[in-house]
Amino acid sequence: MKPETNQRVRQQTLELLRKAHIAVTPEEAGAIEVADFGLDDIRRIGLELLVYRNDERYCAKELVILPGQTCPEHRHPPRGEHTPGKQETFRCRWGEVYLYTEGEPAVAPKAALPAAYRENFTVWHEIILRPGEQYTIPPDTLHWFQGGAKGAVVSEFSSKSVDETDVFTDRNVRRVHPAG
Amino acid sequence: MKPETNQRVRQQTLELLRKAHIAVTPEEAGAIEVADFGLDDIRRIGLELLVYRNDERYCAKELVILPGQTCPEHRHPPRGEHTPGKQETFRCRWGEVYLYTEGEPAVAPKAALPAAYRENFTVWHEIILRPGEQYTIPPDTLHWFQGGAKGAVVSEFSSKSVDETDVFTDRNVRRVHPAG
Repeated sequence: MKPETNQRVRQQTLELLRKAHIAVTPEEAGAIEVADFGLDDIRRIGLELLVYRNDERYCAKELVILPGQTCPEHRHPPRGEHTPGKQETFRCRWGEVYLYTEGEPAVAPKAALPAAYRENFTVWHEIILRPGEQYTIPPDTLHWFQGGAKGAVVSEFSSKSVDETDVFTDRNVRRVHPAG
Repeated sequence: MKPETNQRVRQQTLELLRKAHIAVTPEEAGAIEVADFGLDDIRRIGLELLVYRNDERYCAKELVILPGQTCPEHRHPPRGEHTPGKQETFRCRWGEVYLYTEGEPAVAPKAALPAAYRENFTVWHEIILRPGEQYTIPPDTLHWFQGGAKGAVVSEFSSKSVDETDVFTDRNVRRVHPAG
């Protein structure tokens, strides 16, 4: 991602947080992560994250999804023998998000995917989340999501985040944390 | 607590959530807990809670604190031999909250307590939280908090909530969940 693209997406993320009336400190604003999953196509495939807390016991963050932006399909596998995969509760705070997971596929899903990516999305059970609505994704369950026309701000409450072990359907995806 | 008091506090809670721009479903509005800790003095000692999720892995809720209302001093002891007590991250969303925990006591604390209750508050290390600011309370650590002049809305991210096992300094406190 070009530095100027990163900068523009960061500004847009702060603007969506502002629309959602979510207060962030200047230090937090600087720590927002713009994740392009190694695909360098941030406006179509990507996600913006502000992590509040992540430790062995729990994790809380805001997810900011640009209009029409898609977080690629993935699952959170078990961690070792005794720890089940990450469980996540998504709570929509602002905007609208189309969430897809395992189960009966939607006949006419709201999300639209670019043809180039479509084969990497295999689950189509649709949950539409509007402000105040939430959904919990069980461990090790495939899911992906797309922001609505105005984008979305979603609080994620979960067990510990260990992004490096996430399993993506698209083998081109690289989920790494930026240096620094 | 009289039913009409409960009803008025519930309305005030919804009004504070509205000021904080936190969307809640009608079902959630009906499920808000008004906790008077058995002291029947809700405007001075109490707390309002909207639980989003609480299971073995994590808990997330909004705490609504009326202007000048105080949540009594308590700690979360270990659960059995292998589970440390509840750990909590408080993130102020709106208003101002004065949080007190173990450590160097404040010389001129912001919180004011009615004389009748004062002996049940023993820790005075002060953390002031304004919107966007957060603080994590370690397990089994005494703490209490009071809402500022306008009240406060605080997101709590934590390990599992098991309120029934909380240990309060005031032995008159009864922390029970309302029937139904």
